[in-house]
Amino acid sequence: MTTRPKTSDPVTPRVIADLRSDTVTTPTPEMRDAMAHAAVGDDVYGEDPSVNELQAEVARLCGMEAGLYMPSGTMTNQVAIALHTRRGEEVVCAEGSHIYEWELGMMAAFSGVVPRFVPAPLGVPAPEEVRAAVRHSVHQSPTGLISLENTHNKAGGTVIPLEVLAGIRAVADAEGLPLHLDGARVFNAAAALSVPLSEITRHFHTVSVCLSKGLGAPVGSVLVGRAEHMRQAHRYRKMMGGGMRQAGVLAAAALVALRGGPARLAGDHRRARVLAEALVNAGYDVNLAAVQTNIVYATIPDAAARSAAWARSGVLANALGPDSVRFVLHHQIGDEALEGALRVLTA
Amino acid sequence: MTTRPKTSDPVTPRVIADLRSDTVTTPTPEMRDAMAHAAVGDDVYGEDPSVNELQAEVARLCGMEAGLYMPSGTMTNQVAIALHTRRGEEVVCAEGSHIYEWELGMMAAFSGVVPRFVPAPLGVPAPEEVRAAVRHSVHQSPTGLISLENTHNKAGGTVIPLEVLAGIRAVADAEGLPLHLDGARVFNAAAALSVPLSEITRHFHTVSVCLSKGLGAPVGSVLVGRAEHMRQAHRYRKMMGGGMRQAGVLAAAALVALRGGPARLAGDHRRARVLAEALVNAGYDVNLAAVQTNIVYATIPDAAARSAAWARSGVLANALGPDSVRFVLHHQIGDEALEGALRVLTA
Amino acid sequence: MTTRPKTSDPVTPRVIADLRSDTVTTPTPEMRDAMAHAAVGDDVYGEDPSVNELQAEVARLCGMEAGLYMPSGTMTNQVAIALHTRRGEEVVCAEGSHIYEWELGMMAAFSGVVPRFVPAPLGVPAPEEVRAAVRHSVHQSPTGLISLENTHNKAGGTVIPLEVLAGIRAVADAEGLPLHLDGARVFNAAAALSVPLSEITRHFHTVSVCLSKGLGAPVGSVLVGRAEHMRQAHRYRKMMGGGMRQAGVLAAAALVALRGGPARLAGDHRRARVLAEALVNAGYDVNLAAVQTNIVYATIPDAAARSAAWARSGVLANALGPDSVRFVLHHQIGDEALEGALRVLTA
Amino acid sequence: MTTRPKTSDPVTPRVIADLRSDTVTTPTPEMRDAMAHAAVGDDVYGEDPSVNELQAEVARLCGMEAGLYMPSGTMTNQVAIALHTRRGEEVVCAEGSHIYEWELGMMAAFSGVVPRFVPAPLGVPAPEEVRAAVRHSVHQSPTGLISLENTHNKAGGTVIPLEVLAGIRAVADAEGLPLHLDGARVFNAAAALSVPLSEITRHFHTVSVCLSKGLGAPVGSVLVGRAEHMRQAHRYRKMMGGGMRQAGVLAAAALVALRGGPARLAGDHRRARVLAEALVNAGYDVNLAAVQTNIVYATIPDAAARSAAWARSGVLANALGPDSVRFVLHHQIGDEALEGALRVLTA
Repeated sequence: MTTRPKTSDPVTPRVIADLRSDTVTTPTPEMRDAMAHAAVGDDVYGEDPSVNELQAEVARLCGMEAGLYMPSGTMTNQVAIALHTRRGEEVVCAEGSHIYEWELGMMAAFSGVVPRFVPAPLGVPAPEEVRAAVRHSVHQSPTGLISLENTHNKAGGTVIPLEVLAGIRAVADAEGLPLHLDGARVFNAAAALSVPLSEITRHFHTVSVCLSKGLGAPVGSVLVGRAEHMRQAHRYRKMMGGGMRQAGVLAAAALVALRGGPARLAGDHRRARVLAEALVNAGYDVNLAAVQTNIVYATIPDAAARSAAWARSGVLANALGPDSVRFVLHHQIGDEALEGALRVLTA
Repeated sequence: MTTRPKTSDPVTPRVIADLRSDTVTTPTPEMRDAMAHAAVGDDVYGEDPSVNELQAEVARLCGMEAGLYMPSGTMTNQVAIALHTRRGEEVVCAEGSHIYEWELGMMAAFSGVVPRFVPAPLGVPAPEEVRAAVRHSVHQSPTGLISLENTHNKAGGTVIPLEVLAGIRAVADAEGLPLHLDGARVFNAAAALSVPLSEITRHFHTVSVCLSKGLGAPVGSVLVGRAEHMRQAHRYRKMMGGGMRQAGVLAAAALVALRGGPARLAGDHRRARVLAEALVNAGYDVNLAAVQTNIVYATIPDAAARSAAWARSGVLANALGPDSVRFVLHHQIGDEALEGALRVLTA
Repeated sequence: MTTRPKTSDPVTPRVIADLRSDTVTTPTPEMRDAMAHAAVGDDVYGEDPSVNELQAEVARLCGMEAGLYMPSGTMTNQVAIALHTRRGEEVVCAEGSHIYEWELGMMAAFSGVVPRFVPAPLGVPAPEEVRAAVRHSVHQSPTGLISLENTHNKAGGTVIPLEVLAGIRAVADAEGLPLHLDGARVFNAAAALSVPLSEITRHFHTVSVCLSKGLGAPVGSVLVGRAEHMRQAHRYRKMMGGGMRQAGVLAAAALVALRGGPARLAGDHRRARVLAEALVNAGYDVNLAAVQTNIVYATIPDAAARSAAWARSGVLANALGPDSVRFVLHHQIGDEALEGALRVLTA
Repeated sequence: MTTRPKTSDPVTPRVIADLRSDTVTTPTPEMRDAMAHAAVGDDVYGEDPSVNELQAEVARLCGMEAGLYMPSGTMTNQVAIALHTRRGEEVVCAEGSHIYEWELGMMAAFSGVVPRFVPAPLGVPAPEEVRAAVRHSVHQSPTGLISLENTHNKAGGTVIPLEVLAGIRAVADAEGLPLHLDGARVFNAAAALSVPLSEITRHFHTVSVCLSKGLGAPVGSVLVGRAEHMRQAHRYRKMMGGGMRQAGVLAAAALVALRGGPARLAGDHRRARVLAEALVNAGYDVNLAAVQTNIVYATIPDAAARSAAWARSGVLANALGPDSVRFVLHHQIGDEALEGALRVLTA
């Protein structure tokens, strides 16, 4: 799946910093200990106490009635899309949304719906653009759902201001439409805004919260919303094959991540800023206005070759276009690792 | 999701035996230890060594080129259906197949295909019935796939004889059709026939192997087949949300199950026989010819009330119809637990 | 598509009787005249007066609020299935139903639903069997729709008694489920029962009425039901490509068929009886109890060869199995043509 | 469906010119005569000689092996998409494409695919942009099809230059991808370029040709391509409910349109130019560079109110946005009707 050198490859030098994604973190000793001692049961029967605890905890943090644990953020997002739509409808979303760019047409294959894009400078769609994208005509696909992403990955981990969320919720209410949040990195958004998670999530009918990105859990996301929605989501999760048995071993690790992870995000954001400015100083083009959380996109000529060269020196980053490289900070890149990485990147 | 008493419920007595399914087992200390020390990586990048090892091991046991780990048997089956079919085709399968009865219409919702049932006395469809169910007409849905289930859950954990497998494969070859095996309990079939797993799996193009049933792993199934098929399966797995990150924590436990589990199945089968005969002696109707592995279906008048009463005495079993109760043996029900259960069931 | 001789084939003798289906009739002079003078408009804008008249007329006959014209009965049925269901649900229907056997998996490909069959001796499912097939469990596909077929084509053009319709509607009401009728030959059912059409259709939420079978129109079916359902059906029709422009040329012919056709059906039924009894007298096996309308199924050894031989003598019928031939009477087979056909068939 | 006055409305004045679309034309006396005398058969059995003749004729004009008649252009396009793709793939197409904007999500609901847009100034996508939109990664939706629209309706009936077609075909070949043409108005493109139809269509694997737009037939489109593709298309057409019985009555009219229609298009184009220039002279904003065939988009402040006012004076046109009105010329708007319309529009 990847041609880049792997850590187990004998010719690869020591990895100084794996900046490809915040999904690459490995479980901490505390998480491993939690897995080894987790209370578990058969979650398909709803009997796994660790899963039940995780679901309740994420729901509480989001101010929602209930939650449902699933193996990935793709599944929580796609279950939400299925919940809210009927076949042939449109999902209004920001250009570059993960639900379209990285979820492989599942919105069409499973839910039978198509995206309707709105412009989103720095990942932020204007409420009036959202309103203009909504349609109810019998001659066109009616809108079934509005979906936002916060932070917005492809735009650079950018944060949607609270007043924009309120404005888009007002549009959704006026149009009688549900509003979903792809909150893969919603904890980063809350950290950047210095607000409780619920200040963001309260604007939405359902929220997908990922535990295996910045928070560092090995596996899983939780969908939260009204209890009735979660009851229906249960069926869609099962259809997609997301009904896991003793999932409590994962949920226990996720609970550790949930409790300890959010406090570490500010550090990741600070280090992303340091990295971005170092890259600018080294002569690379970085849109500093977009560096709001833990992601840095830099314009790097001949990106694939350059990132391969860096990898040979122990710094891993993803070339995502011919001249674009993405760096993602996470809790396993501390100040020291960052310094090491910067020596390679700015050499 | 269930109204039956839970183990954590304060008013529930000690559970003597949970015979509801072989999915209810909890991880052994050895599995928990493996999870705590598993080598992991980001499996979405193909870098999790434990997942890679598990996939290779299951493929090797089945005599296949490659394998792909997923969170559930529903997902491995439904990915296989997607692999082999195009929208509007038919999947020829035995009546009562899990892919139809318990996978919630996913074959239709995702792959756009419908089932075409063949009669299957004791879970065994005759090759000539399979052939008669195949159609190629332009006026009807063409057949896209033949799918078997071995052992056949709803028929009572029954085993398909090897010569029937060969006969159905000959039909598939003659008709130019792929042949898939829902092998959720294929290790039980191999144990019952006293043959290596590959004697069964070699008749198929793809096989779904479950690790969280009789083998006792907490989570997961592996789909095996040709490397090219697994490459395509990777995309479908991702679409369904089955791309997990550090899945190695689960794979490590599954490897323990895979290595130690098969040898224990003969004991489960022996105990199922004991249970079945005890039920017959107690006056219940059991089709002993169907008790071939670890599952026992008994005709129990007023099944729901009776199983609730048993549950209050510490023996859990699933009422699956107005007068039908299913008992499933597994590695956490030893001779002693069985004796205790029999005292309750035959009281 | 067919290897049987065609009328335009120079080596084919004069066709004495085309008994393959009641769909093979050609437009009458009156219909052609209506087409030549039809008032038309753009039906995609809802402006075709002939279409509007046809829709209103069929709705009125069925005692429904509104109707929607479509190019085929497959489309009216599949639009109805889409109307009433959500992805992953089950459609309870009689075994052998046209919506499954002859509509090529469209229920799965478009609506994402699977069939759940109930036994139907002579095409008539018992209300209690329908009730037993309904499910609401979160672990299984929930039922989304009950669909009947009257007359039931594959069972031999058999009629569902009115009290059975009432009984199944009571089940639907008790379960909170919609009830659809595939009324491709509902006029035949009404004729056989000597009741107005609405005595049958009043038990249903939607009915698909075909104009190009026994009634003899060249093209089209009308879906009828509540106005709100028809508004939604409009969108599904457009999705499937059933939005036709100046469809009034077809609707005008269909209006002629609708007004003159029903009165002729009793004659078709009488002639089917004559044919069936002649076949029995000639030594063929026919289930006379199933000969209730215009269709006759006969057991004919070596059906394909025999029907080919008959075709060479000018009598066309469909071999639908290795030893099964179907004969369908229609308004272009009068007493004289039937006599000619019988001379060939009983020779 | 429309709130605009209808021709049959007693308070509506005489309609001077219906410029809403080239789909609003009514059948000519010659077409009605053809319908009244058409040789027909059951097209579901492939026995309708008029349909067969039409299919062969359109295929011949396009230089293709075979054709298949369907009730609408939406169906021919969506059958083509189904033919060429597998679920979860992307269809690369120009922004504003009819297959996305006006076909109600059918690409998702039936084929399970999503659009991937390329910029298309004046409706013309650059080959290099098409190439950049193609993807083969396992982490993203792979491209399944490239689809063009010529003339491009939403861009104003604009024509794709032949060298651009050749360039995009070269991209398709290099990437191993099929290339489909939505040729709803491909005769207009051929007329504008003064080339035979096949000079355009030869660049494509399948082409959807509409007979009920500029050519004036009452109903229908023909999909053309390789014989093997048409054999598969037959099944998809049947799934969507496009199998019509005695469709020859429509095909006969379509043959008249096909033979007489193309020669009239140059006149429509000339009149569109006259209309566009008159609107400019009257002070309205029209992008004259986009007026290449029979469509004129004008910027009209307060478009809905203005077009309603014009309708009251007998000139019908579609307000397609808050300040955008579309005028479409067709064979039932001659010089005299245009003059009458201009008096109203420029008053």
